[in-house]
Amino acid sequence: MTDQEASNTPEAPAAPAVRPRQASHRGRTVAPVASSNSDEEKFPEFEPTMLLPRGPPPLTEYLDIWDVDLIKRPHEVNKQQHHTSLYSCDYLIVRRAQEFKIKITFNRAYKPAEDKFAVEFVMGASPQYSKGTYIPVFPSGERRSTWHGQVLETSDNVVTMGIITAPDCIVGKYGVYVAVVTPYGIRRTRRDPNLDVYILFNPWSPADAVFLNDEEEREECVMNELGVIYHGSYDDVAERSWNYGQFEFGILDACLFIMDKGAMPLTDRGDPVKVSRKASAMVNSRDDEGVLVGNWSGDYMYGVPPTSWTGSVEILRDYAGSRGQSVGYAQCWVYAAVFNTFLRCLGIPSRVVTNFFSAHDNNGNLKMDIILDEKGRVDRDRTKDSIWNYHCWNECFMARADLPDGFGGWQVVDATPQETSDGMYRCGPASVAAIKHGHVCYPFDAPFVFAEVNSDVVFYCRSNEGTLQPVKVNSSHVGRMVLTKAVLHDGRRDITEFYKFPEGSETERRVMERAEQFGCQREKASAPQADVDVEILGQEVQLGDTFDLVLQLTNHSVQRRVVDMHVSGTVVFYTGVPSAEVLFQTPTVKLEPQQSKKEKLVVRSEAYLKKLLEVQGNLNFIATGKVKETGQIVTAMRLVAVNNPTLTVKVSGSPRVDEEMYVTVEFTNPFKFSLEEVYVRVEGPGIMSIQTKKYSIIGPGSSITWTERFSPRRVGTTKMMASLDCAALRQVYGETEVTIQE
Amino acid sequence: MTDQEASNTPEAPAAPAVRPRQASHRGRTVAPVASSNSDEEKFPEFEPTMLLPRGPPPLTEYLDIWDVDLIKRPHEVNKQQHHTSLYSCDYLIVRRAQEFKIKITFNRAYKPAEDKFAVEFVMGASPQYSKGTYIPVFPSGERRSTWHGQVLETSDNVVTMGIITAPDCIVGKYGVYVAVVTPYGIRRTRRDPNLDVYILFNPWSPADAVFLNDEEEREECVMNELGVIYHGSYDDVAERSWNYGQFEFGILDACLFIMDKGAMPLTDRGDPVKVSRKASAMVNSRDDEGVLVGNWSGDYMYGVPPTSWTGSVEILRDYAGSRGQSVGYAQCWVYAAVFNTFLRCLGIPSRVVTNFFSAHDNNGNLKMDIILDEKGRVDRDRTKDSIWNYHCWNECFMARADLPDGFGGWQVVDATPQETSDGMYRCGPASVAAIKHGHVCYPFDAPFVFAEVNSDVVFYCRSNEGTLQPVKVNSSHVGRMVLTKAVLHDGRRDITEFYKFPEGSETERRVMERAEQFGCQREKASAPQADVDVEILGQEVQLGDTFDLVLQLTNHSVQRRVVDMHVSGTVVFYTGVPSAEVLFQTPTVKLEPQQSKKEKLVVRSEAYLKKLLEVQGNLNFIATGKVKETGQIVTAMRLVAVNNPTLTVKVSGSPRVDEEMYVTVEFTNPFKFSLEEVYVRVEGPGIMSIQTKKYSIIGPGSSITWTERFSPRRVGTTKMMASLDCAALRQVYGETEVTIQE
Repeated sequence: MTDQEASNTPEAPAAPAVRPRQASHRGRTVAPVASSNSDEEKFPEFEPTMLLPRGPPPLTEYLDIWDVDLIKRPHEVNKQQHHTSLYSCDYLIVRRAQEFKIKITFNRAYKPAEDKFAVEFVMGASPQYSKGTYIPVFPSGERRSTWHGQVLETSDNVVTMGIITAPDCIVGKYGVYVAVVTPYGIRRTRRDPNLDVYILFNPWSPADAVFLNDEEEREECVMNELGVIYHGSYDDVAERSWNYGQFEFGILDACLFIMDKGAMPLTDRGDPVKVSRKASAMVNSRDDEGVLVGNWSGDYMYGVPPTSWTGSVEILRDYAGSRGQSVGYAQCWVYAAVFNTFLRCLGIPSRVVTNFFSAHDNNGNLKMDIILDEKGRVDRDRTKDSIWNYHCWNECFMARADLPDGFGGWQVVDATPQETSDGMYRCGPASVAAIKHGHVCYPFDAPFVFAEVNSDVVFYCRSNEGTLQPVKVNSSHVGRMVLTKAVLHDGRRDITEFYKFPEGSETERRVMERAEQFGCQREKASAPQADVDVEILGQEVQLGDTFDLVLQLTNHSVQRRVVDMHVSGTVVFYTGVPSAEVLFQTPTVKLEPQQSKKEKLVVRSEAYLKKLLEVQGNLNFIATGKVKETGQIVTAMRLVAVNNPTLTVKVSGSPRVDEEMYVTVEFTNPFKFSLEEVYVRVEGPGIMSIQTKKYSIIGPGSSITWTERFSPRRVGTTKMMASLDCAALRQVYGETEVTIQE
Repeated sequence: MTDQEASNTPEAPAAPAVRPRQASHRGRTVAPVASSNSDEEKFPEFEPTMLLPRGPPPLTEYLDIWDVDLIKRPHEVNKQQHHTSLYSCDYLIVRRAQEFKIKITFNRAYKPAEDKFAVEFVMGASPQYSKGTYIPVFPSGERRSTWHGQVLETSDNVVTMGIITAPDCIVGKYGVYVAVVTPYGIRRTRRDPNLDVYILFNPWSPADAVFLNDEEEREECVMNELGVIYHGSYDDVAERSWNYGQFEFGILDACLFIMDKGAMPLTDRGDPVKVSRKASAMVNSRDDEGVLVGNWSGDYMYGVPPTSWTGSVEILRDYAGSRGQSVGYAQCWVYAAVFNTFLRCLGIPSRVVTNFFSAHDNNGNLKMDIILDEKGRVDRDRTKDSIWNYHCWNECFMARADLPDGFGGWQVVDATPQETSDGMYRCGPASVAAIKHGHVCYPFDAPFVFAEVNSDVVFYCRSNEGTLQPVKVNSSHVGRMVLTKAVLHDGRRDITEFYKFPEGSETERRVMERAEQFGCQREKASAPQADVDVEILGQEVQLGDTFDLVLQLTNHSVQRRVVDMHVSGTVVFYTGVPSAEVLFQTPTVKLEPQQSKKEKLVVRSEAYLKKLLEVQGNLNFIATGKVKETGQIVTAMRLVAVNNPTLTVKVSGSPRVDEEMYVTVEFTNPFKFSLEEVYVRVEGPGIMSIQTKKYSIIGPGSSITWTERFSPRRVGTTKMMASLDCAALRQVYGETEVTIQE
């Protein structure tokens, strides 16, 4: 904030020799805003309330504290009842608005009528009662404090106290003191890091803004460390597992560090709206040196390719361990997965969702433009919009006290840096209910999310004079399907209906009108209806296959039609950005009245394979054409997902805690060329931390087999997951389920 | 965005040797988002639409363009009708949704039936029709284009064309081409910077979102270059003049540069909501290397003290001239004044307003805490909140298409960096109507602005055990008055009623309840009513005077009362932050039943003078006390504004354009100490650009006289304004009105 670079005094103030930097807070605020949970202010062991004669005051007759026990071991009552026993963390971790117990041993029996003591919770620099960073809790609940304390049990010198935190208290790490009030002043325990307490959001408490009244949903969206993320294409959905690892050692501290690094005021950290919004900014590195650097280029030389990660743990540990050096590289699912870890770790219910055919970069305008030239061929120079094959974001669950009733529940947050989201690289929380109903006037970033699921694809024909005429409007392409993992099993859950009313319904029409009233612009002109239809038929393609692309043309008129077609096939990044053209043909198709006809075009393996592998891409085919007789333009578009080879993952050995087990990863290069600089990763949440192995070369048709030993750390069903990655082949995954017994 | 720092290839991808930086847009988007108005793409002079044989096509038979006249001189029709003739700028400047004329001379007479031509407007890199950065306008309005063109007149080879831009088109600088369509392709004029056109917002057009249907308001809030900014204290308002200078040479370009520097997407620049929001972030240097560095410290060594500026021109020219090096230093009125220049320059109606007793840094919570100890004395260590004596922000006028009906009109925007406004240093636009009615759920930052005018001041008494008890709630102190300059004359206009319903009214209570429902938190407890009142009486104090502070105590009870008072006087920055205590007394006051009594305390000149001058401060007195008989706490607070000496400014000579005139600035040091390193600035909008003079020393009682020659550049009534500034004395101003004749 401060440190001016001193130098010679300038001649005149109008032309300073040194450009000024940010000045100190002096004069601006009484104290800097506390914005770091890792700062601390040590409280004195004795705080006099009066002028004292020299020497220590005679405190022997007053209560003294011998020991404080936070009852914090995983199997003990606090962590069990607060659903925090899975955290690999020696500290006490409890949730808001729910009682936890502490045992205080005094030097003598506690006399309620005479003795006054308090348990003090403090956070950050200059803790203050009115900022919620200093909270004294007294043993009788009657005191003025939003936190509640009571003596539950007294036995000899030991008092068991129950404490209930405020339902909106700051989430993070507090220091704990026990203080005794004497007539001379306050005597308190010495600062002891072992007495630190983490307080988290509490989806189990109706008083907490993140209350989620469904035990199975909570188990999935707060407690589940293992996730499934959907990708691929709408009609050929692929999936991969992800280790969120929110309970792994160091992850909770990393999440708090992220907020510290973003200088988030402590006072804001009790509000899930503000916490999730801040994290949506901090999970990407733009603006604020956040966690993950985005890279969609195909060149990942200076970091880990986005497709190579198998979980969030490594990423968050690397970021926190380096005190906030951004980690490379991410694409949308990596942002969403790490964001999901952050949210679940702090106790905000969350899930990763995938929107198929997601409109982007269109700034709340409800159209994506594809420009054709006068002949009906795609004008690549002028078509700058792209539709993402899929896009992953997060939903988190919370009440929205800042909005009118009805907009709580699931909220979209998105950490993938968008170029146009209100000038900053963050997005949300935007109420899913508000998006469904077109109430895009409420914060945050609702018009942007609305456009992601509701834009029209508009084909324009550009005349030689430069004017554009809309020739086809496809309003069902974008936001075709929204998927998330099912609750407590690995199936898919289609949640499209939470975002949209049925296509073509009257309600949908009204929702679109409402969004337009709030400034979402769409193409108003309706395109002329052509009497010829074209369609590209779907199919499954194995990577490396030569295959037929099938066009189906139908003449609805009672006259002959001749259609001059342009069919182009392009390797596209998953962002829809074209990389290389692999097919271009211009068939002319003659159709008898009312005839329907198939036209086959061969797509050769050698034409697309190398180009496809480089960009972990898919093939996008666009067929356009002009009907000779009428001048009408016909269009069709289809994304063909290509199925990658997979890894084989097997485990062997005795599936018991601390016993020796083995994992074997096998892969065979199916191609006629060598794979070079191949990295294989394998990890098993709760059973094996991440292992990486590099192969300099895997020859054509060659196989690799890699076996690692591991010892499961805990019981339960989990997965062993592996990825394989090299410049010529990405997005190769494998996994197997493992159940560990006691 | 790109440039990875290349170096040795890392051993394993998990530990990259070089931390990755932002990658390119490759794969992410088809093209980078156009976000600079200064980028340009040259259009070719001939653009073939067909494969051509070698050699130039035979174009001689088609229309050729000999000359294009934009009719852009200040006295000509375009600038006159578009209210842009005052801009010191050779280019054509017009406003949206209003016809302007251009004359095109062809090689022969234009034949409407055969000849096809268009006037093309282009902006930025990769101009696109669908992004609004490429607009061809055809001479007959029937073409598909949101801009309208028609031939108004034809005379020989000259065609006069009228063009009306779309009411929501991008505001900024467009390149203009004239293109003729031939069967071989498009022939167009060569890129000519002289044909550039600036298109601005249009408050005169009902179709524009910034339409303001009041000619006098428009004259004031768009056309007036001279402003008055209020400061001081609620009951002793001070004022100073400011040269907004929105028409001065280079300012319009500087405003466009600010948006370029902030990489604002061109497509957003037609929306006044987005433009004003972006500028609220860019006018301060935080986050984004914006225009002004804030400094409240009193140490302005490496820049210009905030109190020294007399206008915005110097600041904006310095920023744009250095290609975006932030300029030091600003406090709230400097931010507001420069922001005002930006808004008026682009055509968004705007005004600077001053809120007296403005709550800050409280994150939408409706209370500012003052902590007293058990004896009723202010606990300075624990009182971290401060109320600004005043705070300046801007209002700008626009429709809010993004919100439900009723929230258009004046909008608060604030460029002063707030620590807690949604994690970024920007604020607004927040609808003033929404604030008045407590509808703080609408974007942007309404809860923050609501708190600035509506917070309670809560006095807490802190027990020795650490608990806080509210003892007095003052709900009328904050947001006491909101002032802005009157329309077309120099008087004040009280606009408090646009922000708040009358204090204590039923409507006010409902508004507060509504804001609380949206999460604005306030102190719920009502403090016990004391039967003794204390008040500090107001008075005017001349800087350097020794004066009496008068307390008035009233005993409402029928018993005797003894009150132990603590009266402290502190020099405070205008942000309310205390600097030095200059008075501390603890009178004990005995009151007979129902007696009212005055208690006088002497405040000595030598005790406060030096400390006050250093921080351009005021004196804040807090009187607190405890009634012996009842234990009740009484409190009172008063800010005493101290009147600074002023400068004398005189002009002489013949008040005519281009004639010689003189300005004389006089000042006498009224103090018993020397003033060192004194800077004097003087400027006269439209008559003299800024002049600075430095005096190394001005002895006690010494006078300076400085005369400068100038030649008025234009007719009209304006002001000559001067400021004097040194470390020991700030905020000394003087001005005189000057009327220049033809």
